[in-house]
Amino acid sequence: MLTEKTIAKFLDELASNSPAPGGGSVAALSGALGAALTTMVCNLTIGKKKYVDVEAEMKSVVRQSEHLRQTFTALIDRDTNAFNKVMEAFGLPKEGEQQKALRSAAIEAATKEAALVPLEVMKHVIDALALAKVVAEKGNVNSASDAGVSALMLHAAAEGAALNVQINLGGIKDTDFVGWKTDEVASLVKTSKMNAEEILSIVRKKITGT
Amino acid sequence: MLTEKTIAKFLDELASNSPAPGGGSVAALSGALGAALTTMVCNLTIGKKKYVDVEAEMKSVVRQSEHLRQTFTALIDRDTNAFNKVMEAFGLPKEGEQQKALRSAAIEAATKEAALVPLEVMKHVIDALALAKVVAEKGNVNSASDAGVSALMLHAAAEGAALNVQINLGGIKDTDFVGWKTDEVASLVKTSKMNAEEILSIVRKKITGT
Repeated sequence: MLTEKTIAKFLDELASNSPAPGGGSVAALSGALGAALTTMVCNLTIGKKKYVDVEAEMKSVVRQSEHLRQTFTALIDRDTNAFNKVMEAFGLPKEGEQQKALRSAAIEAATKEAALVPLEVMKHVIDALALAKVVAEKGNVNSASDAGVSALMLHAAAEGAALNVQINLGGIKDTDFVGWKTDEVASLVKTSKMNAEEILSIVRKKITGT
Repeated sequence: MLTEKTIAKFLDELASNSPAPGGGSVAALSGALGAALTTMVCNLTIGKKKYVDVEAEMKSVVRQSEHLRQTFTALIDRDTNAFNKVMEAFGLPKEGEQQKALRSAAIEAATKEAALVPLEVMKHVIDALALAKVVAEKGNVNSASDAGVSALMLHAAAEGAALNVQINLGGIKDTDFVGWKTDEVASLVKTSKMNAEEILSIVRKKITGT
């Protein structure tokens, strides 16, 4: 599992001349980092007298953001596995019509899966941003920058995952699937951007007063 | 060292109720992920017949992006250490005028250092984005999404580091320092945003043709 490697080792494998792990796994990791920072702000708010009014809400956010962190963490490996499945399909034998047809169907199915994994990352980002907004608004003001970095990492996850959905859609023949997913990506990026900007404006107001 | 922890363990420490590591270290990590992806695209371009014309340039980019990756990686720990130094200064004794003055000077010095570390992250992002642009333009087209995620992680590093500079500037009394660094942050964020958008438009054209 990629998440059992040290950060230094993960960075080495990322930089290597193997295409996986690549940008898709990094997008999922970025989501996990964002969710972890939302949890941290909650944990730095819970138990503080000044924030007793929001304690119950912070505890509820922690439960949800920790669940999302697990989901994003699993998606780091899922993205690399989905990519490797596409490579395996391309490696199938292609002698004769039957083999060619089987290989072509295997590539199509694997590429769809490789598009759906980053699309899942994007959907979870929207949920995670809703939690980041709560901590940006109501969490410990000393951790306002952490709430902001949470939103930045989550939005980078959405934008990065979008590129990974799109590059895979380019290899899919099923035009209905491609059309549907293209629209879904555009809509999710837009929602993510709007929410991240809203959070960052709350954070900047707290940090710089403007 | 934080980078010798597994990704899972780093995420656990991030999410915990300790303020460090926090957003500042995540911003540096985001820079390291961005630099590693630029290196990866180079490594997936070098040695390919189709890209023989850019091989020398890709080799030069690898050397620079690997150097930047090391720098960002070191900044992950440096940010957490700088934060811990601020906490230590706040913990100094404050009985009597002399102790108060010493403590106050120690807090000022440590907070300046805690602002300068993420400012360094921002400066390195500008250099790293220049390299990401080369791989987005000339690197293996199959890795276009990785070049895009590289730019996204680098820009998130700049924006996240900016919040960390700013929150520290809020605790510094030296108004000349604060004014100077405030302008520097604004200028670096603007440059980072402009470059990242340029790279993403190159990448999107390659991926979706629009």
